[in-house]
Amino acid sequence: MAARLELIALERFPLVEPGNDLAGLLMAALQDNQLTLQDGDVLVIAQKIVSKAEGRYIRLAEVQPSERAEALAAQADKDPRLVELILRESREVLRVRPGVIIVEHRNGYVHANAGIDKSNIRNSLLDPQVLLLPRDPDASARQLRRELARRSGTAPQIIINDSAGRAWRNGTVGMAIGTAGLLPVRSQVGERDLCDNVLEVTEPAEADELAAAASLLMGQAAQARPVVLARGACLQGAECGSGALLRERSRDLFR
Amino acid sequence: MAARLELIALERFPLVEPGNDLAGLLMAALQDNQLTLQDGDVLVIAQKIVSKAEGRYIRLAEVQPSERAEALAAQADKDPRLVELILRESREVLRVRPGVIIVEHRNGYVHANAGIDKSNIRNSLLDPQVLLLPRDPDASARQLRRELARRSGTAPQIIINDSAGRAWRNGTVGMAIGTAGLLPVRSQVGERDLCDNVLEVTEPAEADELAAAASLLMGQAAQARPVVLARGACLQGAECGSGALLRERSRDLFR
Repeated sequence: MAARLELIALERFPLVEPGNDLAGLLMAALQDNQLTLQDGDVLVIAQKIVSKAEGRYIRLAEVQPSERAEALAAQADKDPRLVELILRESREVLRVRPGVIIVEHRNGYVHANAGIDKSNIRNSLLDPQVLLLPRDPDASARQLRRELARRSGTAPQIIINDSAGRAWRNGTVGMAIGTAGLLPVRSQVGERDLCDNVLEVTEPAEADELAAAASLLMGQAAQARPVVLARGACLQGAECGSGALLRERSRDLFR
Repeated sequence: MAARLELIALERFPLVEPGNDLAGLLMAALQDNQLTLQDGDVLVIAQKIVSKAEGRYIRLAEVQPSERAEALAAQADKDPRLVELILRESREVLRVRPGVIIVEHRNGYVHANAGIDKSNIRNSLLDPQVLLLPRDPDASARQLRRELARRSGTAPQIIINDSAGRAWRNGTVGMAIGTAGLLPVRSQVGERDLCDNVLEVTEPAEADELAAAASLLMGQAAQARPVVLARGACLQGAECGSGALLRERSRDLFR
């Protein structure tokens, strides 16, 4: 738990292309911003640049929608080829209404349109393409952590974040879809509070809180800054991924 | 949208008692931490100390549970007097399972147990008491903003935050239950992205993102720090409360 937390959005991060060495771009951007990785630093990285580096583009012209996709597309008033991709990226469709299809992504998170993105990608009206989420964001995070450790001597904690809508509340917030080197949900069950009562259930989803904080700095529009260095977050270290953030379906009252 | 955001948890904030002048405590704590309010600063304040200052304690011994509360208490395995308070604080019960009652609070947010709190309050086993949310957190935030402006010459933006569980995801995150002086959901509809596509729907819930960030620093247990100064958040100013964060029931697919 920090007393002071500093979040620094890296300036001048280049546009990322498929096949780019993301760890290399990160190292160069840190240097360009006169920053050196320190123990306990967290790098929060926008999903979009991970997907781009991993070449997760799909040209809609290459997608053949299934019958199910056609039917769902009519219901949701969406391009059937996009809906086909949403279905391929998902385990289950949870809700549909015009303009939005909310699914459980095959990686477990609940996400509108399976997180498939049409913004901030070079596009043409004649041959539109979309960008899928990274195939395995925890693996992407682990690999970046390993590569950055190898090149810098310091292994930063990694959060890959994405903006997502929520039940009950308007607006999107950043959430962690992939992590490495940190415990995403801190357990405080059994600790004592200020007045010596045992805390009953207090498990802050710290990775999501930091993902949200970083999202505040990243921006969505032209001035987008896809990488945020967080210093002072004091996240607990752990060799696990982001799975603890996902509520089991059987324990979810709102699915 | 900031390039650098600093969050500073105030140290040595005193335990708050009913009737305390919270603005006065905040001014003293800022001074004690050698901080001076600057234009654009946001003070994120834990709901708990606002409730305490407003004397929102209830002694369970004074609560007479209704029949409905008794029935619900049996279903949820909770103290019927607590359940009576949950019902009084709510508009609607959304879900019930042993240990948890999820309601729409009369202020509009969806919250387990109507946000009623048993931790961090001086308690006795013989005469337990609980702490309700502030009666009108937006009004509390407005008043703090006004008082701080009067005493310091600078009107900070105010967020009153609380930790809440979510659909689909484990762990709690800080969310804004009251705001003053800021636009809680930034509208970017119609802006253009990096590649000159018009952004379709991008409305970050910036007040919630900052509430979550601050929550990361506040802690829940013995070392709790209930006030966080955020510098560099660049939230849009507005004379409105937190209402824009609440999704209308008719537009909520998960209620």
